[in-house]
Amino acid sequence: MTSTRVNTSPRINLDRLLGRLDIFNRIGALPGGGTCRLALSDEDRAGRDLLVRWMRELGLAITVDAIGNIIGVRPGREALPPVMFGSHVDTVGTGGRYDGLLGVLAGLEACEALADAGIVTRRPLALVAFTNEEGSRFPPYAMGSLVYVGGITLDAAYAIRGIDGATVGTELGRIGYVGAATPGWLKPHAYLELHIEQGPILEHADVVIGAVEGITGLSWIEVTIGGQTAHAGTTPMHLRRDAAYAASEIVVFVRRLAQGMGGSQRGTVGRIENFPNLVNVVGERTVLTVDLRNIDGARLHEAEQQLTAFLDRLAAQEQVAITTRSLARFDPVVFPNDMVSLVETTARALGFSCRRLPSGAGHDAQMMARICPASMIFVPSVGGLSHNVREFTKPEHLQAGADVLMHAALRLAK
Amino acid sequence: MTSTRVNTSPRINLDRLLGRLDIFNRIGALPGGGTCRLALSDEDRAGRDLLVRWMRELGLAITVDAIGNIIGVRPGREALPPVMFGSHVDTVGTGGRYDGLLGVLAGLEACEALADAGIVTRRPLALVAFTNEEGSRFPPYAMGSLVYVGGITLDAAYAIRGIDGATVGTELGRIGYVGAATPGWLKPHAYLELHIEQGPILEHADVVIGAVEGITGLSWIEVTIGGQTAHAGTTPMHLRRDAAYAASEIVVFVRRLAQGMGGSQRGTVGRIENFPNLVNVVGERTVLTVDLRNIDGARLHEAEQQLTAFLDRLAAQEQVAITTRSLARFDPVVFPNDMVSLVETTARALGFSCRRLPSGAGHDAQMMARICPASMIFVPSVGGLSHNVREFTKPEHLQAGADVLMHAALRLAK
Repeated sequence: MTSTRVNTSPRINLDRLLGRLDIFNRIGALPGGGTCRLALSDEDRAGRDLLVRWMRELGLAITVDAIGNIIGVRPGREALPPVMFGSHVDTVGTGGRYDGLLGVLAGLEACEALADAGIVTRRPLALVAFTNEEGSRFPPYAMGSLVYVGGITLDAAYAIRGIDGATVGTELGRIGYVGAATPGWLKPHAYLELHIEQGPILEHADVVIGAVEGITGLSWIEVTIGGQTAHAGTTPMHLRRDAAYAASEIVVFVRRLAQGMGGSQRGTVGRIENFPNLVNVVGERTVLTVDLRNIDGARLHEAEQQLTAFLDRLAAQEQVAITTRSLARFDPVVFPNDMVSLVETTARALGFSCRRLPSGAGHDAQMMARICPASMIFVPSVGGLSHNVREFTKPEHLQAGADVLMHAALRLAK
Repeated sequence: MTSTRVNTSPRINLDRLLGRLDIFNRIGALPGGGTCRLALSDEDRAGRDLLVRWMRELGLAITVDAIGNIIGVRPGREALPPVMFGSHVDTVGTGGRYDGLLGVLAGLEACEALADAGIVTRRPLALVAFTNEEGSRFPPYAMGSLVYVGGITLDAAYAIRGIDGATVGTELGRIGYVGAATPGWLKPHAYLELHIEQGPILEHADVVIGAVEGITGLSWIEVTIGGQTAHAGTTPMHLRRDAAYAASEIVVFVRRLAQGMGGSQRGTVGRIENFPNLVNVVGERTVLTVDLRNIDGARLHEAEQQLTAFLDRLAAQEQVAITTRSLARFDPVVFPNDMVSLVETTARALGFSCRRLPSGAGHDAQMMARICPASMIFVPSVGGLSHNVREFTKPEHLQAGADVLMHAALRLAK
C-alpha cells in the first residue's frame, strides 16, 4: 500500500458544538438530563425555530418543504447536486441529548468550521433536519425522509393519526412548518448522517468511529386482543377470556422468539394499553405493539410468520379475538461499499480507530439510500444507552464524529 | 321433621321493582345495556339523589353518615336495634344493571310491599346503600361498610387517592354526601343482603336461591416494576431490563398459580400501566395489580407467598426493581349458621329451590358480619356474567330473591 498525503484540517470547534447542544437541549428538558421533543409538539416547534435561526445566522439558504423537512444550502463553486448531511431534531418521550440532534448540529458546525477556514467546496453542501424520525407519536418512523424519497405520499402522511389522536397534517400546520417546497425538490449527490450508535458495540470494542454498512429491517405490528370482562372473584379460571393475560403471553413469546432466533433478531413490546383496566375486572381488550428487527430480510420474515402462527394458536386456546395491523415495515438496507469505505478511510486519515457495523436502529439514511448513495458515521454510546435520559457520548467522540462527517463531505464535494 | 305453617304473603311487586331498576339504570347507562356509576362520580351522585327521593316518598327516615352511607329507617313497634338490609349503588367501569343496585331496590320494594299490606314489624327495618363497594376507583372495596364497622378510620378513608388522582374526601364533598352522622351510628340486630351471584354455580345447578355461607378472602397487591428504557433496535436481548416484559411474566405466573392451586383460588391482573409506552422503547416502568382470592385463608396466604417468591426470583433474573403495596386484604368470612339456615328455610317456605354456596366476590355483608349476625341471598346470573354490560338475571329470579329478602327480614324483625 502506498501512503497518501491527506489534508486533515480544518477541524470542527468542539466548544461551539457542545454549546449548541446545551442550548438546544434546554427545549423539552427532562429531569435526569434527557429531552422530550415528540414530533410536531410545541417543543419540536421551538427546536425547529432555533435551528432555523442558527442556519440563517450562518447564511444558509433555507427551504422548508410540505412535510416540514428543513434544508439549509451552503452554495458551492458549481451548481451541481449537493452533498447532503443531517439527521433529525425530534426525540422519543424519554429521549437523550444526542439521538438525531448530534447529526444536525455537527452538520451546522461543519458549515461554520468551513466558513471559518474560508473553504468553498465545488458542490453545494445541504444540511437537513428531517421531520418525525422517531415515529413515537406518529408512525412510521423516518416519516420526513420517507416522504422526501417518495416512499409514501404527502396526503397519506398528513392523514396519519398519532397516539394522542391528532393527525400529522393538523399538527404540522399548527406548529407552522408546512413549507411550500415539494419534498424531494433537491436531489443529493450523496447523503451522510452522523449519529450515536445507540448500542454497545463500539464501546465494547473500544473503537471511536463506526462505518455503517446497512440498516436493520423492521416490522411494527399493532396487536389488538378482544376478550370478555368478567368478575375477578367469581369467574372460574377456565371460563375466562382474559385479554390482559393473552397479551402477556404475547409479550413473553416475543422475548423468547428473539432470544431463540439469536443473531441480529430483536423483539420488543413497547406499548401496552389495557381496558377497562380495573383491579377486579378480567380484561376486555388489550392493544400492544410488537417491534421486530433483523438485518437479514428472510429472518425478519420468519420472525413475523412465527408471531402470526403464535397469535392464531393463542386466539384459539384463550377464546379471544386477535387482530393485527402493520404500523411500519421496512426491508433491510445495504449501503454502497464505496460510501462505507469513504467513512473508513476518512476516519483513519484523521487518526481514529474505525470498524464496520450494521445499525439495529432505523435512520433517515435508510430512506435517503433509495435516491442517492448514502452511509452513516456512528460514535460510541456509553453503556449502549439510548432512548433514555442518561444517553451519553463522550465529547472527544462527538468531536471525532463531527470531524469525520465534515471531511467525508469535503471528499464528496470537492 | 314436623311441618310448620308459614305465612308466605305478602309478595313484592315485580313490575314496580323492574320499573325502578330501569329508571335507575338510565343513570350512567352504557352501550350494550350496562352502567358506569364509579364511586363518587357525577353518576354516583345522580343515583344517590334518586334513591334518597324514593326513600323519602316511602316515608323512610333518612340519615347520611360522614362516609356517605345512606340509611333509611322504617319504624317498628318497638325502639329496638333494626333489621338492616341493602347493598350499594356504585358500579365498576363496565358495570351491569344488578350488581349492588338489586339489593338496594329490592329492599326499597320490600318496604313498599309491607306498607301496601299494612304490616308494621316489631323491630325497625333499615335500608342501607353503602358508599364505594366496588373499589374500582378508590381501593379498597366495601369502603363504606368497612368504615361503618370501624375497620378503617374516616380520616384514612378520606385520604385515599383514586386511580384518577382525586381523593375520597374531596370527591365525597364535591358530590355533597358528607353527612353529619358518625358511621356505625345505628347498630343492627342483623344484616341481610340480596345480590346477584356473579358466577355460574346457581345457573348450572338450576337452583333459584343461594344461601351464602361465607365470603372469599382477598388480597389486592399493586406491583411496580422498574426497568431501564433502551432502544428497541440496538439493545441486545440479554442486556435488557424490560419492565413490560417482567410485568408480563407476572401476569402469566398469576394465571398459572391460580390454575395450579385449583379449588376456590382465583388470580387476576386487571390493571396494567406501562411507561413510557412507546413502540420502539424498552419499558422503564410498569405498574400492575394482582387480585388473589381463596375461601380458605391458609391457601390465600400460600398464594401470596408464592407470588412474593416469584417476584424475588424475577427481579434477580431480569435485573429489575420490584416493589409491592397492599391495596386491600381481607380474611375469609364465615356467616353464622343460623343466619344461613334462615335464608334456606325462608326460600323453601316460599317454594324456591335453594343451596348453600360461598361467595367468590367481596360484599358489604362481609364487613357487617363484624358487628352483627349477617348473611346473603344470591340469585342466578345468566352465563355467570358480571362486571360486564351483559350482566343479566331473569325477572322471576329477581322476584324470588326480593321475596326471600323480605320474608327473611320479617322473620328477624317480628
